Amino acid sequence: MRTEIDSLGEFGLIDHLTKNNETRNAGTLLGVGDDAAVIDQFGRQSVISTDLLIEGIHFDLMYTPLRHLGYKAVAVNLSDIFAMMATPTHITVSIALSSRISVEALEEFYEGVYAACEKFDVDLIGGDTSSSKSGFIISITAIGEVAPDKYVTRSGARPTDLICVSGNLGAAYLGLQLLEREKKIFLENPGVQPDLQQQAYLVGRILKPEPRGDIAEWLQENNIMPTSMIDVSDGLSSELLHLCRNSDTGCTVYEDKIPIHAETTEIALQFGVSPVTCALSGGEDYELLFTIRQEDYEQVARNNNISVIGYMTVKGEGTNLVTKGGNKHKLISQGWSAFG
Amino acid sequence: MRTEIDSLGEFGLIDHLTKNNETRNAGTLLGVGDDAAVIDQFGRQSVISTDLLIEGIHFDLMYTPLRHLGYKAVAVNLSDIFAMMATPTHITVSIALSSRISVEALEEFYEGVYAACEKFDVDLIGGDTSSSKSGFIISITAIGEVAPDKYVTRSGARPTDLICVSGNLGAAYLGLQLLEREKKIFLENPGVQPDLQQQAYLVGRILKPEPRGDIAEWLQENNIMPTSMIDVSDGLSSELLHLCRNSDTGCTVYEDKIPIHAETTEIALQFGVSPVTCALSGGEDYELLFTIRQEDYEQVARNNNISVIGYMTVKGEGTNLVTKGGNKHKLISQGWSAFG
Repeated sequence: MRTEIDSLGEFGLIDHLTKNNETRNAGTLLGVGDDAAVIDQFGRQSVISTDLLIEGIHFDLMYTPLRHLGYKAVAVNLSDIFAMMATPTHITVSIALSSRISVEALEEFYEGVYAACEKFDVDLIGGDTSSSKSGFIISITAIGEVAPDKYVTRSGARPTDLICVSGNLGAAYLGLQLLEREKKIFLENPGVQPDLQQQAYLVGRILKPEPRGDIAEWLQENNIMPTSMIDVSDGLSSELLHLCRNSDTGCTVYEDKIPIHAETTEIALQFGVSPVTCALSGGEDYELLFTIRQEDYEQVARNNNISVIGYMTVKGEGTNLVTKGGNKHKLISQGWSAFG
Repeated sequence: MRTEIDSLGEFGLIDHLTKNNETRNAGTLLGVGDDAAVIDQFGRQSVISTDLLIEGIHFDLMYTPLRHLGYKAVAVNLSDIFAMMATPTHITVSIALSSRISVEALEEFYEGVYAACEKFDVDLIGGDTSSSKSGFIISITAIGEVAPDKYVTRSGARPTDLICVSGNLGAAYLGLQLLEREKKIFLENPGVQPDLQQQAYLVGRILKPEPRGDIAEWLQENNIMPTSMIDVSDGLSSELLHLCRNSDTGCTVYEDKIPIHAETTEIALQFGVSPVTCALSGGEDYELLFTIRQEDYEQVARNNNISVIGYMTVKGEGTNLVTKGGNKHKLISQGWSAFG
């Protein structure tokens, strides 16, 4: 018998392969299935997350400067640590490369890695280097720390909790569309130089995402303990559905509350897509999506970088989007899939 | 300017890319450049190691059963943790795969991963899953723990320390040669079934290496604290040169003390190579190479799984191999290179 990987999808595959996974160490507090794992080490707790990035699947070297790639590879891992309300402290970086990549190109990549380390006060402590027959492969593991039991999972939300998101959504997806369009034009007319100055914000969002350590820190400083949290890597819909499934709740979100940047709206309309669709189904925004108790509303409302977009409901009410016109739609996950 | 990666070699490349790496966290006790990194976490210490394995570079699916591959991928990482005299506790496993791999094949791979977890009492706590355009990619990070400052680096050996190695060397290299020979025969005559029953030991050494947690544990139980330690992944010469360079010593090892299995000798001669060359320059034995103080000699001599093969000298005496005939040769590193 042969079952195709595609028939399960990424999340189905992970569930399938880890369903018989046993936990032997009492120190394993949280295993597979959240943004990061949590292990108890001698009273305090460590948070661990890992990502594998592959040329041609996760990035295109034709329009990704290596310095940005190095920065982003670290950033997306740190985003997972922040999504646990933990503080990243260490990373390992493993790479495999073909002879197409020169030492100078690799130096640029590491400049980006070190820039991210410096910005987020993280130490690079190890890795592995190998050759590759086909393209650049990056594997990063991030380690963070958190005070005992102060980490936030995807599974703690309760009905009536408010749903919050940091920053704005959909911009990274449109940044990618702009880069893909310019690539196509360039391949057809190699003489034409791309001009993306006017869309610098959108392009910056896809090439150099900033993980929201600032938001995690602000919540901590203000003693707001989210009831659940996830980072937005696959699109708002997909992440909301994760929170609801893991917390065993439903949700209601309001289309007109979803934060969208003016440039996102403008370029979405140019591409003939709805800006809200970009926010719901685009990806790679690396904002934080989280739920809070109602009593924390006033404090959160003071932070201009956080939008309250809806609330959690009992599971039976389903997962709903209320449109500007007042209609209710079922939220469906159309997030990017790395399988496809 | 364009410098080719090959011109630096793997270790040169790592040195080059990490020379400006700064350490920011006081808890970073040991960073890039040993078998694993060590971070201080709240009084006790964690040891972290990571490896990237790529189809066509590190393994050939034509003769590597996926169950063995899963086991080995975990085993080689645990070997790095044992080489720090630490105890592995957790791993993350990330994979990228092409549609060529079925769900059933992947289940076999995970059976091997779980078998290694069970054998070494380690928890699988996370990972990442992705598609790949070209072959199977595996990235594993292992985490272990060690009592404060009880980890063993590559840099603590002093002149007169005795050089010890566990088990025997060179077998994995010959196991690989046997598999490669059978592959060639099979490709030329697809009807011929390989028969490797008689060389089961050698083939087992390459396909299913056993990291020497037992040796690390025995040393601990007997209060023998090695002064330096490394695992033998690239061949004895290469690893000895690492210990000497990091400890700023020279060494003298005796050809006739190097432990070689009878089957290794037999098959080496069949292939027309010297068994000692297989031990010195072959790789993937995953034995432990370490140095001890002279006063620990008698205790170590009681363990039949450990051979004393020479001693450390002052740096000025160089790195020497004394042949059976009493001649002195300079040890040179001809270990396998993943770049090639």
